[in-house]
Amino acid sequence: MQDVTRTLARLVVQSRYDDLPVAVRHEASRALLNWFGCAVAGSRHETVDRALAAILPFAGAGQAGIPGRGERLDILNAALVNGISSHVLDFDDTQAEAIHPSSPVLPALLALAEWRGLSGAELAHAFVLGVEVECRIGRSVFPQHYDAGWHITGTAGVFGAAAAAGKLLGLDERQMAWALGMAATQSAGLREMFGSMCKCLHPGRAAQNGLHSALLAAQGFTSSEQGIEAKRGFGHVLSSRFNPDVITEGWGVHYELLSNMYKPFACGLVVHGVIDGCIQLREEYGLQPAQIDRVDLQVAPLVMELTGKTDPQTGLEGKFSVFHAAAVAIVDGVAGEAQFSDARVRDTEVAGLRKKVHVVADGTLLWTQAHVAVRLRDGRVLERHVPHPLGSLERPMSDADLEAKFLALAGDMLGGRKCGDLRSLCWKLTDLPDAGVLVRAAAVI
Amino acid sequence: MQDVTRTLARLVVQSRYDDLPVAVRHEASRALLNWFGCAVAGSRHETVDRALAAILPFAGAGQAGIPGRGERLDILNAALVNGISSHVLDFDDTQAEAIHPSSPVLPALLALAEWRGLSGAELAHAFVLGVEVECRIGRSVFPQHYDAGWHITGTAGVFGAAAAAGKLLGLDERQMAWALGMAATQSAGLREMFGSMCKCLHPGRAAQNGLHSALLAAQGFTSSEQGIEAKRGFGHVLSSRFNPDVITEGWGVHYELLSNMYKPFACGLVVHGVIDGCIQLREEYGLQPAQIDRVDLQVAPLVMELTGKTDPQTGLEGKFSVFHAAAVAIVDGVAGEAQFSDARVRDTEVAGLRKKVHVVADGTLLWTQAHVAVRLRDGRVLERHVPHPLGSLERPMSDADLEAKFLALAGDMLGGRKCGDLRSLCWKLTDLPDAGVLVRAAAVI
Repeated sequence: MQDVTRTLARLVVQSRYDDLPVAVRHEASRALLNWFGCAVAGSRHETVDRALAAILPFAGAGQAGIPGRGERLDILNAALVNGISSHVLDFDDTQAEAIHPSSPVLPALLALAEWRGLSGAELAHAFVLGVEVECRIGRSVFPQHYDAGWHITGTAGVFGAAAAAGKLLGLDERQMAWALGMAATQSAGLREMFGSMCKCLHPGRAAQNGLHSALLAAQGFTSSEQGIEAKRGFGHVLSSRFNPDVITEGWGVHYELLSNMYKPFACGLVVHGVIDGCIQLREEYGLQPAQIDRVDLQVAPLVMELTGKTDPQTGLEGKFSVFHAAAVAIVDGVAGEAQFSDARVRDTEVAGLRKKVHVVADGTLLWTQAHVAVRLRDGRVLERHVPHPLGSLERPMSDADLEAKFLALAGDMLGGRKCGDLRSLCWKLTDLPDAGVLVRAAAVI
Repeated sequence: MQDVTRTLARLVVQSRYDDLPVAVRHEASRALLNWFGCAVAGSRHETVDRALAAILPFAGAGQAGIPGRGERLDILNAALVNGISSHVLDFDDTQAEAIHPSSPVLPALLALAEWRGLSGAELAHAFVLGVEVECRIGRSVFPQHYDAGWHITGTAGVFGAAAAAGKLLGLDERQMAWALGMAATQSAGLREMFGSMCKCLHPGRAAQNGLHSALLAAQGFTSSEQGIEAKRGFGHVLSSRFNPDVITEGWGVHYELLSNMYKPFACGLVVHGVIDGCIQLREEYGLQPAQIDRVDLQVAPLVMELTGKTDPQTGLEGKFSVFHAAAVAIVDGVAGEAQFSDARVRDTEVAGLRKKVHVVADGTLLWTQAHVAVRLRDGRVLERHVPHPLGSLERPMSDADLEAKFLALAGDMLGGRKCGDLRSLCWKLTDLPDAGVLVRAAAVI
């Protein structure tokens, strides 16, 4: 593929809303609902408090809101803060190439749409294109780029934000190529930051810099028009392997958004199989902790490597304990943020059951798979094999599952009525005359 | 060197103003004066106009000014704009590792100092440390990092801005390590952008993101404390070779700022030898264009490769024509921005002399060297060999040279009296109780 930057720019500019399949439009609503849950629940995290403290003295006019909070900021700073809050719980959507697609793109679009009073259909269209651009560019350098140490949600996300914002701004083909070039030269984010607050700075800065790239391009601020493919451009400088063909092939036929995955449980994907199996058994057999003698788990070796903490003391440690995950799933029947609080980790009943959990690593299992066996005091053994956990492409979360996740995340903060309103607005996304109602409905004054 | 991020953070935090040698303090004034000339002259460039158009609707309170203009912006946006304006003419200072040290650092510091009313000594100290940090980190990955395609003024500059701003903010050692980590994870800028407006976005964004890293760290926003040296940190991810030792060795003994170079002429370094030789001959012999029969230049092959345009038509093309450079230097006796205007390139006398210039590539010459021979109508041949052009470390610009350059750049915009005031303030930098007077003195309402 020659001139991939320019070709991609043309595809984005020429794309029409009417071309989008109905399933893709619906998926935009699903992703939006999931994003709002994460952003609202994340908005009161101390990471966001600290970021806001370092931003508020310098922010411009209150053009855009922060879901879950009352502050209003200029659109560039709103994009930054919302990118941070939507990723801070690590509960946002994912793709096979390790990209979290919505967190760098939606904050840029929601801010721009709110400020300009753009329609929901325009927002949905730009969002679909942004996800298309970031996932395709990500795939062009995956996995070498990620393996080398780049946090691909930041490095690819900035392209998605630039393309999506550029679409909303109505850039022409050349301006869109400049916006993509500016994204290329601001592509950044290192995996070394995992485990610190700085990890969620990456989608935040990607959203902000991508949006700014589009705004600069709209003013005629020039850039290279070969920012992605040039010898000293993104693909060759940031990766040992670069395949530009995947950036454009199958455009308009295969949609990246249809490969979007949503996490049902508020912890790493590696323990989702175990949690899923435990919840299934609980629901089917009306399991009570008091009945249980012993829980046996078979998991891939990686699961024990990453989540082998036997005696967690804090909520965060609980996320790295397959023992806690199994116990709390059986006791509570869900595994949202609340199940990974300090209180739930220290709860007597949960901690008691945790001691009865035994884990064996089994090299024949994939890291997403699990086998759960619960031995009851009456001697019965209840078993469940989970080949594909809930939330995987093979067993996606239903619309109802996504609604339940959203309510669990946003309910405390917004209350039932506002949650209901926001949920309805998300489902009606493409019919909204002014997409600004979305963020305004998520405000907490 | 183990723990280089943490060690560097400690060195910066523990550094005391009183430790700075007098020569280093004086060099800070020289660099500041040179920077102001570039920033004021660059401030009306269309690149800056377009950037400002894309920033003003979103900027916060008028905390800091833009030298050469009347707008006032929040400090983060002021750092961005001033980083752009000071590099747009490519006339700012340089170091052996291809870093332009002042443009990513001073915009962050001047904005912060103006907002907080910090003293000139504090600013000078932070500036010296910022240059120390960026040049040493740059050297730890040079030349492989640069050769791979990274624009090192952006990638290393963000560390300088973060460290310098962090020093002004009084960060403790751990916060400083976080600020350096955030710089690492925002290190960006591709050489593919050379030739577009986007090149000077790099020091601008480095200044802004470095400043923001320090502000975030001051609020307790955490990052990795091994951002520079970790397996997935800056050194290993952004370069095929990384030598952490040079980041700290000789700290406090050798000062990077003393290796700072200033360009006397408003074009690429490769033609500085030719211009220097031409001006020397003009001054010594009172050369008039009408006397000249022919000009013969011997230069390194690279000079012809980069600046071989025989018949330039615009000011920008003139910068890539060693023929124009020689002719205009003989006619005008200087080679500032004015000599690379469309008007001077099209001037009859200059164009006439340009046709008499002949160039031979000589593989024995270094790319900074030149040999100039002017044959007069009366048969005399005047020759000058330039082993080290003015502005090189071997033949630095004098304080008077820097003042003349400053006046040539800022004179039209500020007028004589304001230029005089600002020049005096730069020389008195370390005695200023409030460094905010500097930028305010450079404002044009």
